[in-house]
Amino acid sequence: MNFPSKLIEDAVTEISRLPGIGKKTALRLALHLLKQNEAVTEALALSITRMREEIRYCKNCHTISDQELCSICQSHRRDHSIICVVEDIRDVLAIENTNQYTGLYHVLGGVISPIQGIGPEELKIESLLDRVSKGEVREIILALSATMEGDTTSFYLSKKLKESGVKVSTIARGIPVGGELEFTDEVTLGRSILTRINYSQE
Amino acid sequence: MNFPSKLIEDAVTEISRLPGIGKKTALRLALHLLKQNEAVTEALALSITRMREEIRYCKNCHTISDQELCSICQSHRRDHSIICVVEDIRDVLAIENTNQYTGLYHVLGGVISPIQGIGPEELKIESLLDRVSKGEVREIILALSATMEGDTTSFYLSKKLKESGVKVSTIARGIPVGGELEFTDEVTLGRSILTRINYSQE
Repeated sequence: MNFPSKLIEDAVTEISRLPGIGKKTALRLALHLLKQNEAVTEALALSITRMREEIRYCKNCHTISDQELCSICQSHRRDHSIICVVEDIRDVLAIENTNQYTGLYHVLGGVISPIQGIGPEELKIESLLDRVSKGEVREIILALSATMEGDTTSFYLSKKLKESGVKVSTIARGIPVGGELEFTDEVTLGRSILTRINYSQE
Repeated sequence: MNFPSKLIEDAVTEISRLPGIGKKTALRLALHLLKQNEAVTEALALSITRMREEIRYCKNCHTISDQELCSICQSHRRDHSIICVVEDIRDVLAIENTNQYTGLYHVLGGVISPIQGIGPEELKIESLLDRVSKGEVREIILALSATMEGDTTSFYLSKKLKESGVKVSTIARGIPVGGELEFTDEVTLGRSILTRINYSQE
């Protein structure tokens, strides 16, 4: 595209660097901003700059936080003896939205992926072991994606945590609530049979 | 969503004000920016602020420009006797990309739409008539959308331009190149028969 203005070209180039936004969408967004009040663009620019410059990570669980310790780690209402290990902060938000979990979190910052060059050293695994070694933790719930990388990471973590003697569990994989057997893929269905829940034991 | 950080919440709120971007996408974009170098966010913020504050509009054709007159209006290679009337700058870019047009443009800034409260006064119609009245213009090509609003605006403009004696044309409506008769809607097909092109006359 030949832009008649360097200013709009620059803005389109920068906006289109965002994931999932191409040149056409970027142009649409730029023209939208041009039509709005100047305050709208200013607020947007300021909020992303402030976020990038001032954001902090909880020194305990590595989730995004405005203070040294996040509100979850600070809360006395949460069960400090359970840690749910997740990949990133979106997973924290997703689990929080279920209102089913009252423990703490630990954000790894990714999963082990040799293809993307992410090894265990790149993840916050050492600090998880540190937290466990303090003795307060009773259970670790691994809540990683049901992908090759997620499973590899879960396996790695469960081996690392074995020595500590803490209970390690993983979230259930099976048929989604509302899902029909007929349309469930074989791997999921197979796993859901293997990891069946014993009613009589409960 | 309950965000653990006011900073990220503000950024998500501002990003989700953009058209077509919801809270989830906004969060994804915000987290993407957090993972990038600080310079990326700074460049993005600066480019949109500069664009919004410093952008100018060509005083002749109202397209976006860095100078008082846009590069198209300044060019001596363009045919200054033909003006193509379009809705907004995206249409200018689209027509420029065809490499089929060498005249000038006139950006209306919208189309007449009583539902959205846009009347002829809101559009750059007076300045179009001014340009025509200077006598240099030979033909006006109306290149507006083939919608109710676009057709209304075309009709309004053609009536307004009648007195000036200048030739007024509109871009052809018909079957898209590569399109099959069978799958063309009746209105388009009907129009394409009514406005058929006479081969023997050419």
